[in-house]
Amino acid sequence: MQFVTFGEIMMRLSAPDRLRFSQARSLDVTYGGAEATVAISLANFGLPSRYVTKLPNNPFGDGAVCQLREHGVDTTCVLRGGDRIGVYFVEPGASQRPPMVVYDRANSAISQLQPGELDWGQVFSGASWFHVSGITPALGPILAAETREACRAAKAAGMTVSCDVNFRKKLWTYEQARETLTDIMPMVDVAINPESVRIFGCTNEPNATAQSSRAYEREARAFSTRFGAKTVAITIRDAHSADNHSLSAMLLHEDEVYRAQTYDMHIVDRVGGGDAFTGGLIYSLATGKPPQESIEFAVAAGVLKHSVHGDASLFSVAEVEALAKGGGSAKIQR
Amino acid sequence: MQFVTFGEIMMRLSAPDRLRFSQARSLDVTYGGAEATVAISLANFGLPSRYVTKLPNNPFGDGAVCQLREHGVDTTCVLRGGDRIGVYFVEPGASQRPPMVVYDRANSAISQLQPGELDWGQVFSGASWFHVSGITPALGPILAAETREACRAAKAAGMTVSCDVNFRKKLWTYEQARETLTDIMPMVDVAINPESVRIFGCTNEPNATAQSSRAYEREARAFSTRFGAKTVAITIRDAHSADNHSLSAMLLHEDEVYRAQTYDMHIVDRVGGGDAFTGGLIYSLATGKPPQESIEFAVAAGVLKHSVHGDASLFSVAEVEALAKGGGSAKIQR
Amino acid sequence: MQFVTFGEIMMRLSAPDRLRFSQARSLDVTYGGAEATVAISLANFGLPSRYVTKLPNNPFGDGAVCQLREHGVDTTCVLRGGDRIGVYFVEPGASQRPPMVVYDRANSAISQLQPGELDWGQVFSGASWFHVSGITPALGPILAAETREACRAAKAAGMTVSCDVNFRKKLWTYEQARETLTDIMPMVDVAINPESVRIFGCTNEPNATAQSSRAYEREARAFSTRFGAKTVAITIRDAHSADNHSLSAMLLHEDEVYRAQTYDMHIVDRVGGGDAFTGGLIYSLATGKPPQESIEFAVAAGVLKHSVHGDASLFSVAEVEALAKGGGSAKIQR
Amino acid sequence: MQFVTFGEIMMRLSAPDRLRFSQARSLDVTYGGAEATVAISLANFGLPSRYVTKLPNNPFGDGAVCQLREHGVDTTCVLRGGDRIGVYFVEPGASQRPPMVVYDRANSAISQLQPGELDWGQVFSGASWFHVSGITPALGPILAAETREACRAAKAAGMTVSCDVNFRKKLWTYEQARETLTDIMPMVDVAINPESVRIFGCTNEPNATAQSSRAYEREARAFSTRFGAKTVAITIRDAHSADNHSLSAMLLHEDEVYRAQTYDMHIVDRVGGGDAFTGGLIYSLATGKPPQESIEFAVAAGVLKHSVHGDASLFSVAEVEALAKGGGSAKIQR
Amino acid sequence: MQFVTFGEIMMRLSAPDRLRFSQARSLDVTYGGAEATVAISLANFGLPSRYVTKLPNNPFGDGAVCQLREHGVDTTCVLRGGDRIGVYFVEPGASQRPPMVVYDRANSAISQLQPGELDWGQVFSGASWFHVSGITPALGPILAAETREACRAAKAAGMTVSCDVNFRKKLWTYEQARETLTDIMPMVDVAINPESVRIFGCTNEPNATAQSSRAYEREARAFSTRFGAKTVAITIRDAHSADNHSLSAMLLHEDEVYRAQTYDMHIVDRVGGGDAFTGGLIYSLATGKPPQESIEFAVAAGVLKHSVHGDASLFSVAEVEALAKGGGSAKIQR
Amino acid sequence: MQFVTFGEIMMRLSAPDRLRFSQARSLDVTYGGAEATVAISLANFGLPSRYVTKLPNNPFGDGAVCQLREHGVDTTCVLRGGDRIGVYFVEPGASQRPPMVVYDRANSAISQLQPGELDWGQVFSGASWFHVSGITPALGPILAAETREACRAAKAAGMTVSCDVNFRKKLWTYEQARETLTDIMPMVDVAINPESVRIFGCTNEPNATAQSSRAYEREARAFSTRFGAKTVAITIRDAHSADNHSLSAMLLHEDEVYRAQTYDMHIVDRVGGGDAFTGGLIYSLATGKPPQESIEFAVAAGVLKHSVHGDASLFSVAEVEALAKGGGSAKIQR
Repeated sequence: MQFVTFGEIMMRLSAPDRLRFSQARSLDVTYGGAEATVAISLANFGLPSRYVTKLPNNPFGDGAVCQLREHGVDTTCVLRGGDRIGVYFVEPGASQRPPMVVYDRANSAISQLQPGELDWGQVFSGASWFHVSGITPALGPILAAETREACRAAKAAGMTVSCDVNFRKKLWTYEQARETLTDIMPMVDVAINPESVRIFGCTNEPNATAQSSRAYEREARAFSTRFGAKTVAITIRDAHSADNHSLSAMLLHEDEVYRAQTYDMHIVDRVGGGDAFTGGLIYSLATGKPPQESIEFAVAAGVLKHSVHGDASLFSVAEVEALAKGGGSAKIQR
Repeated sequence: MQFVTFGEIMMRLSAPDRLRFSQARSLDVTYGGAEATVAISLANFGLPSRYVTKLPNNPFGDGAVCQLREHGVDTTCVLRGGDRIGVYFVEPGASQRPPMVVYDRANSAISQLQPGELDWGQVFSGASWFHVSGITPALGPILAAETREACRAAKAAGMTVSCDVNFRKKLWTYEQARETLTDIMPMVDVAINPESVRIFGCTNEPNATAQSSRAYEREARAFSTRFGAKTVAITIRDAHSADNHSLSAMLLHEDEVYRAQTYDMHIVDRVGGGDAFTGGLIYSLATGKPPQESIEFAVAAGVLKHSVHGDASLFSVAEVEALAKGGGSAKIQR
Repeated sequence: MQFVTFGEIMMRLSAPDRLRFSQARSLDVTYGGAEATVAISLANFGLPSRYVTKLPNNPFGDGAVCQLREHGVDTTCVLRGGDRIGVYFVEPGASQRPPMVVYDRANSAISQLQPGELDWGQVFSGASWFHVSGITPALGPILAAETREACRAAKAAGMTVSCDVNFRKKLWTYEQARETLTDIMPMVDVAINPESVRIFGCTNEPNATAQSSRAYEREARAFSTRFGAKTVAITIRDAHSADNHSLSAMLLHEDEVYRAQTYDMHIVDRVGGGDAFTGGLIYSLATGKPPQESIEFAVAAGVLKHSVHGDASLFSVAEVEALAKGGGSAKIQR
Repeated sequence: MQFVTFGEIMMRLSAPDRLRFSQARSLDVTYGGAEATVAISLANFGLPSRYVTKLPNNPFGDGAVCQLREHGVDTTCVLRGGDRIGVYFVEPGASQRPPMVVYDRANSAISQLQPGELDWGQVFSGASWFHVSGITPALGPILAAETREACRAAKAAGMTVSCDVNFRKKLWTYEQARETLTDIMPMVDVAINPESVRIFGCTNEPNATAQSSRAYEREARAFSTRFGAKTVAITIRDAHSADNHSLSAMLLHEDEVYRAQTYDMHIVDRVGGGDAFTGGLIYSLATGKPPQESIEFAVAAGVLKHSVHGDASLFSVAEVEALAKGGGSAKIQR
Repeated sequence: MQFVTFGEIMMRLSAPDRLRFSQARSLDVTYGGAEATVAISLANFGLPSRYVTKLPNNPFGDGAVCQLREHGVDTTCVLRGGDRIGVYFVEPGASQRPPMVVYDRANSAISQLQPGELDWGQVFSGASWFHVSGITPALGPILAAETREACRAAKAAGMTVSCDVNFRKKLWTYEQARETLTDIMPMVDVAINPESVRIFGCTNEPNATAQSSRAYEREARAFSTRFGAKTVAITIRDAHSADNHSLSAMLLHEDEVYRAQTYDMHIVDRVGGGDAFTGGLIYSLATGKPPQESIEFAVAAGVLKHSVHGDASLFSVAEVEALAKGGGSAKIQR
Repeated sequence: MQFVTFGEIMMRLSAPDRLRFSQARSLDVTYGGAEATVAISLANFGLPSRYVTKLPNNPFGDGAVCQLREHGVDTTCVLRGGDRIGVYFVEPGASQRPPMVVYDRANSAISQLQPGELDWGQVFSGASWFHVSGITPALGPILAAETREACRAAKAAGMTVSCDVNFRKKLWTYEQARETLTDIMPMVDVAINPESVRIFGCTNEPNATAQSSRAYEREARAFSTRFGAKTVAITIRDAHSADNHSLSAMLLHEDEVYRAQTYDMHIVDRVGGGDAFTGGLIYSLATGKPPQESIEFAVAAGVLKHSVHGDASLFSVAEVEALAKGGGSAKIQR
C-alpha cells in the first residue's frame, strides 16, 4: 500500500518573528507547497508516502529532497532537471494585519516538465491511493494534461483518487479552472473543497451565497451528484483576526452528512492548515475509520498544524487522536 | 506641499522576544520617538515629509539619518553636532506584566540646540503643514522657545499647525506644561490628545472624570473653545492586558463630533501607536478626506501599527484604507 | 534570618520560538527545577536565600551555581561532585498543542548524594525557614531519608518547614508517595498542593472529585486535620489552551479559608508558575502579611511568572504588590 | 555634479554563519549587485549618486528602493513594474571550501525593460559621470541596446563614462561578450578589468598567460590602444583560501603605469570587493586625486569592503584614506 | 551493494558563535557521533548506506532518525527502545583556547542493547561492507560482544570489514582496549588509526615516539603484520592553534606506502574530521580508486569537513575530487 | 584576605557577528569596564573579590550587579543611586578595519559620587589588596579625590596597592593625567603600563621612542625610581590586523627584569585583554608565584581573554596555567 502525491514543492521564505518583509534582515527557509504538505502528513502518520515532482539540480533542489526524506517520504520518483525551484515568500500577519504570500513560481522545474518524462506505470507500482490538488493543473497546459493522465492511470490501476481543488485566483480564473477540471473531476473519489458553485456553477438553491451548514451541504451534494464523487469534504473556517481563527468541517460520505466539532485556535502559522486537514482525511478514510471519526480526525489534524511554524504538519496519529477524542488536554505533558 | 515635523529622534533599544531586561543578552536597535514616527508615517503615505532635528556626529547620529532616509523622509534640515543621541530602552510587557520604558535622553544633541541654529524660513520653504508634539518643548527652555518660534513662523507662512500634546510625566509636571504650552496652543489648528482638563484646567462638567464618550467630547469642546483649534482628536484606548487593547477615537471638527469604530487588538508592539494615529489624521485632513473618513483612517492607521515591531508605522494608504473601509479581512493574501 | 531550600537544580533546554523539538536547531539553556525556582523567588524578594544541592564538577555544574549567584542566592552549601547534572527538555505548546517536558534526570549528582555528605547543623546555621518539595524524596531512598533528616533537624532548630508536594507521576506512584511522605508530612507547617485525597486517601465527602471551591476546602481541611499543618494552600488552575490559563488559589490558615482573585493569563512560559506561587506564599507568611493579603500576593507572583521565559520568577516585591493590590495596570510604564 | 549608475539590483540571500545552504534554516537578506554597489559606494563617499533600474511593484522592489535610499542614493529614476526581482543566493566558503553563488535572475523586471521606458535625457540632467558594467548588456539584447544608447547619450552630454567589464561566464561566452561590447568600449573613458585578451583577443606577447605585473600592464596598454580609453585599471587578487586573499591593483593613466600596495586580507564577505574598488576609483578620479593616490584609494576601498558582510562598502572617505595613507592602524579606536 | 555501519548516534549540543559554555544562552543541536558521521559521508557520496543503532522512543530518538534519513541513510535497521539518547556537549575553542567536549553518554539506549535484539543476518542482507569503530566496543561488555559477533557475521558473509580504532581515553584504558580489541582486529581488512604501539604494544623501533612519516609507516606495518590487515591508514594532524591545523595522511596498502599532500586549514568545526576521512577512504577503496588517489580523496574529504559546522561531512564526490585533484580553487563559484 | 577594586562598571553594547554599527539590528549587551574586569578575573581565579562602585536604581544598575554576582564578586559595597549607567558601544573590527569604541559615560552614577558616600574603613574591612585604574580619577575631580583618599586608606591599613594607569586620551590630556596622578603614584606598589615617559616625562635615554625591550625596561626603571614602586609591568602588543595580534609583557620586580614568551593570537574580542593581564598579575603576585612565573601567568591570562567574547576573562587558574606552562595544547579536550 503506497500513497502517491503529485505536485510542486517550492522554497518557502518567511519573515520571522512577526516582522514585515520590509523589516526582516533574514528569512526563514523551508520547503513546502500544498501537495508536498499532504505527502509529509501521510508519512508522519506512518503511511508509505511517495512524492512525485521535478526539481532543479542545484542546492535548493537537493534541499527540497532532503526535507521530504527527513520526514520519511519516498523520493525515488523525484525527477531532477530544469532551471529553478519555485519560491514563495510568506509574511505572517498579526492582529488586524493580514498574512501575505508573494509567489515567484513561474518557470519552475516542474512547470517545465516534458510529456513522457514521468512513467506513471512505474510511479504507481504497489500504490493504492493517488492524491493531487487543483494547483498542479493550474501551472500550465502540460501539467493539466499530466494530471489528467495520472488520474487515468490511477483509476485504471484500481486506485482511489483524491483531489483538493484549492482554487488559487493568482494562477487562473474560475472559467479556466472549469475548462481544465471538468475532465478530471469524474475520476475523483474524494474531493476536498471543490468549490462546485463558483467553479462548476452547480446550483445551490435556494440561498446559494450563505455560508451556513446547509449551504455547504447543498454544495457538497451538488458536486457529488454532478461528478459522482463518493466523498466530499468542505472545511469551515472563520478568521476573526490574523491571530484567531475557528476551524471545523463537514463531510458528505455515501450521501450522509457528518459535521465535526469547531475549534477556536490561536494561530502560530496559518499556511498548510488545509493540507493538514486533507492529510488527516486521507489517513482516516484509507485506514477505515468511520465517517464521523474521519472528519473529526481530519479537523484535529488541521487544527494542530496551526500551532506549528512551517507548512508541514508534524504530528503523530496518537497526538491527533488525543485532540480529536477530547483527551487532548492543554495540560503540560511531564 | 511639504510636511515638516520637528522633534527628537532617539536610539531605541528593546528587549527581544518578550524577555525582561534582566534576561536579554541582546537588545534590538532602531531609531524612533514620537515626532519622527509621525514624519515616517507621512512619508509611507506618500507625502513629502521633512524632519528637523539635531543629531551627533557619530555612528548613531548617522544611523538615525539612514533610518529616516530609508523611509523616504527628507533629512536635508537635520543639524549635526552635540554630544550624544538620546536613548530609550523598551521592555515590552506580556499578560499582566506591563511594558516598561526607561529613558536616557538628558543632554542629547537636540536638547543642546543653540538659538539661531535653525533657520525656520529655510526649513519651511515650500511647506504647508507643521507638526510638533508636546514632548519637544518639555525638553527644556531652549526647545520650548524654539517650538514657539517655529509655530509663529509656520503661522506667518500660512501653514497648518498640528500638535500632539503627548504629556509625559517623567519630563515635566502639569503646571510646567501649562506654563509652557499656554502660549503655543493658540497657534495650533489641529490638536491631538490635548489633555485640556489636566493641563489647562478646562472645566469638564458635570462628570469630569468619567471617561465616557461624552466626557471626551466635553474635553475636546472645552479645548477648542479656549484656544480656538478647528480640529481636536482624542484617542480612546482600553488596556485589558499588555497583550490586548481596544482602540478608538473621537474627532471634533468645526464643532461637529465624529466617532470611529472600536478595534480589539492583539499587541505586537505598543510603542508608536498614538503617533501612527496622528500620522493618519494629518494625512486624512491634508488630503481632504471628510471628517468621518478621516477619523476612521486615523484609527485604522493606529491599529495597524500595533501589529508591527518598532515605533514606525509601515503601512501604505491602501493597506490602511482596506482596514478602515471594512475590506480589511484577516484572510491570507495569496 | 536565612531561608534554606533543598533539592535538585537541572539544566533546562527549551525549544525556542514555539518550535517543536523536531524543528529546533538550537535549544535555549537555563538552569531550573521546582526548589531552585523557589529559592530564586525568595532572593528576588530580598530575603536571604540559601540553596542546598549537589552538582557535578563540570561547566554545567558551574553554570547552575552561577545562575543561582546571579540572583543573589547563597551557594556556599552547594556540594560538588558526582557524574552529571540532571537535564530536562521543554517544548512549550501553543493553542491546542500541549506543552511537553522530557526529563533526563536519572543518575544526576544529587541523586547520588551520600548519607552524611550534608551537615544539616551547619546548613541551618542562622536559618529560620526550611523549604522542600515532594520531588526531592521521589528521587530515591537516599534522598527520601535525607529529606526526612533535614525536616527533623529543621524542626529541632525551631524553624518553620514548608513543603510543596508537587506530585510527579513519572517519578513515583501515589502509593510510593504515601509510603515515603507519611513520615514527613507531620513535620510540615505550610503545605502547598498536598493532594491529600489522591496520595493520602483523606476523605473528601460528599462529592470528592468535583474541583469546586468547596472540594478544595475539604481537601485542605482533611490534610490539616490528618497531619496538623497550620497552613495549607491549593492553587486553582484552568487550562483553556496552551496559551490561555486562569489562575487562582485558596488558603486554609488557622482553620479559616481565604480565596484569592482569579486572573486570566496569556502564557509566555508555563513552567515554574507553581513555584513562583510558593515563593510568594513563603515571602508573605514569613514577613507577616495577613492571610488574605498573603494568598493574593502568592497568586499575583504566580501569575507574573507566566509572563516571562524560563522557570525563574523575576519580580520584585513592588511589582507583585502592584498587581495584587490592583494598581497593576497594563498601561505602559514610561 | 551627479553620478549616474545603470544596472540591476537583486535580492541577495546569504547563508549565515559559514553554513552551507543545506544547513541554513534562515538566509540573510539584503539587496545588491555589481552596479548598485558602485552607486552606494559613491553615495557613502558623499557624492550625489543616482541609480537607474527597474523593479517590480512588490515588497521586494520596495525593499531594494529603501536600501538604496538608506545609503542616500537618489532613486527618482527607478522604474517600477515587471514580474519579479532577480535573486542571487550566496554560500560564503571557508578554508578550502570555495564560496558559491547561485543566480536566479532570469525574467527579472529590468531584463524586461521596454525600449523607450527610460528617457536618458532626463536621467542625465545635471549629471557628469555615467557608470555601467558589462553585466547589464549581458542580460539580453534589449539591455545591450539600452546600454549602448545610454553611453551614446552620456558622451553626447560630455559626461565621463566608466565601465567595469565584469565578465560572467554564466551569462554569456567570450564571443558573445566581444560581439556586444565592441561597439560600447570606444565610448568608455575609464575601463576596469577589461579582460582585453580573453574577450577582445588583444595580443599580450610574449607571455600572455602569466599574471605578472608586466602581463597586466601589457593587457591594459593593448586595451587602451585598441579602444582609446584614457584610464584602465586592473585588480590583482590572489585567493590563498576562502578566508585569505591578497589584493592589489594597477592603473594605466595617460600612458603611465601606477601600482598600488598589496594587502593580505582576512575575508568576512568576498562579494562586492571589486565594486568597492570601482567606487573608490571613480571617486578618486572624479575628485582629482593624482593617479598614484587614486589607485591606492581604490585598492584600500576594495580591501575594506572585504571586512564587512553584504555587497555594500560602508566606509567614509576618511576611513579609506586612513588605510590608504598608512595611518590605518588596526589599533582599537577608543 | 549496501554499506552497513554500527554504533551510537548522540545528541550534540554546541555552544554557538565561539562562546564558552558559561556564556551560551542557547546550544545548537544536531545528532552525531563517529560512526553515524561515516554512514552520512557514504550516503552523501551516493553509496547505499545503512545505519544500525538503538534509540529511545522519544522526540530525540526521532530527531536522530530524521537526521539520518535527511541525508539518505537507510534507517530500517534502527532499533527503538531504552531510556535515553547519549548526549555530548561541544565548546569549540579559539586561538589558544582548546576545544572541549563533555560527554553524557552513560546509560544510553544502545549501551543497553540486549543480546539477540539485532539479527545480523537480516542487517547484512545485500551488504558488502561493514564499518565499525573502536568506540562501540568501548561502551561495555555487551557492545564489545555484539561488535565481535557483527564482525564474524560480516566475514562469514564475505564482506569487507573496516574499523577506525578511535581510542577514547575517557571510555577505557589502553589495557582494556587491548583486551577487547585483540579478538576483533584479525577480522579487520581496513584499519584506520589503529594505535598499534600504544594499544597493542607493537614494536616501533628504533625511534618509536617520533611522529615522523617513518614512524607512522613502521606503526602501520607492525599492525598489518600482527593482525593481517590488507589496508592501514593513519591521519597526520598538526594543531597549531584551535583555529589552524594541518592535515595529511599515509596509507599502507598491500605493503606499499602512499602519502597524501598536506593542507593548512582554517577550522570552522573540528569534530568529525577524522570520520569524514574514514568515509572518504571507504568510498575510494570500495569504488576501486587506486591507492594514491584513495588517500588523496580521503584527506580532501577530511579537510573539507573542517570547513562546515556539525559532525557531518556535507560534500559530494565532485566537490571532494575538485579539491583532491587540485582543481579546487578558492575562487568564488558564480 | 579580600581583594578590593574600585571603579565604574558600564553597559557594553556590541555589534554582533562582525557587523558595523550601521548594519546591526541588535546589539549584544553585557556589563564591563576596566576595573570590573579585573575584579571578575580575580573571582574566577578563586580569590575573594569585592567591587566598589555606584549604580543607578534601574534595571541596568541591577543588571551590572547581577553580572558581578554571577561571577562570584562581592557586591555588598556597591552604592545605588544617581541618574544613569555609563554606556559604551563596541564595533569589533575585522582585517584592515579597526575596532571602534564609542563612549557615552558622561553623568553616570559613579561620576556623580558624593564625597563621604563611601566609607573606606568599612570597604576595606578584612582586605589586603586594593586595585584601581587611571581611568577612575580621569572621570572628574571628585573621583580623583576619592581615588587618592582610597589609596591613602589602603596604605594606612597596610594593604598592597596596584594601579593600571590605562591612559585614555578621550578622557584627559597627558598634562591633566600628570597633575592628578603625581600624588597617587607614590602610594602604588604595583604599577601596570604607567606610561612614565608620556605622562610623567621620565627620561628614557638614549632612544626613547623605540619600542624595543630595552626601551620598555628603561621606562619601567624610570617609573620605579621616580615613584618607588616595587613592581612595574608593561604589556607588549603588536597589532598586525584587527584579527591578529601578538602579546607579551615584561616585569620589573625588585630591580630585576623578567620577560614573558610572545603569543600570536587570533582575536575573538580584543576589549578587556589588558585587564585580564592585570588580573593574572595580581593573582600571581598575591599568591606568591616567583616573578618569571608571575609574568608568564599574567600574559597567558591576557592571551586567553582574547579568545572569548565580552570584556570578562572566563578562565580558571588551571586553564591559564595549562597555557603558561606549555601544557596548553590546542588539541580537542574530549
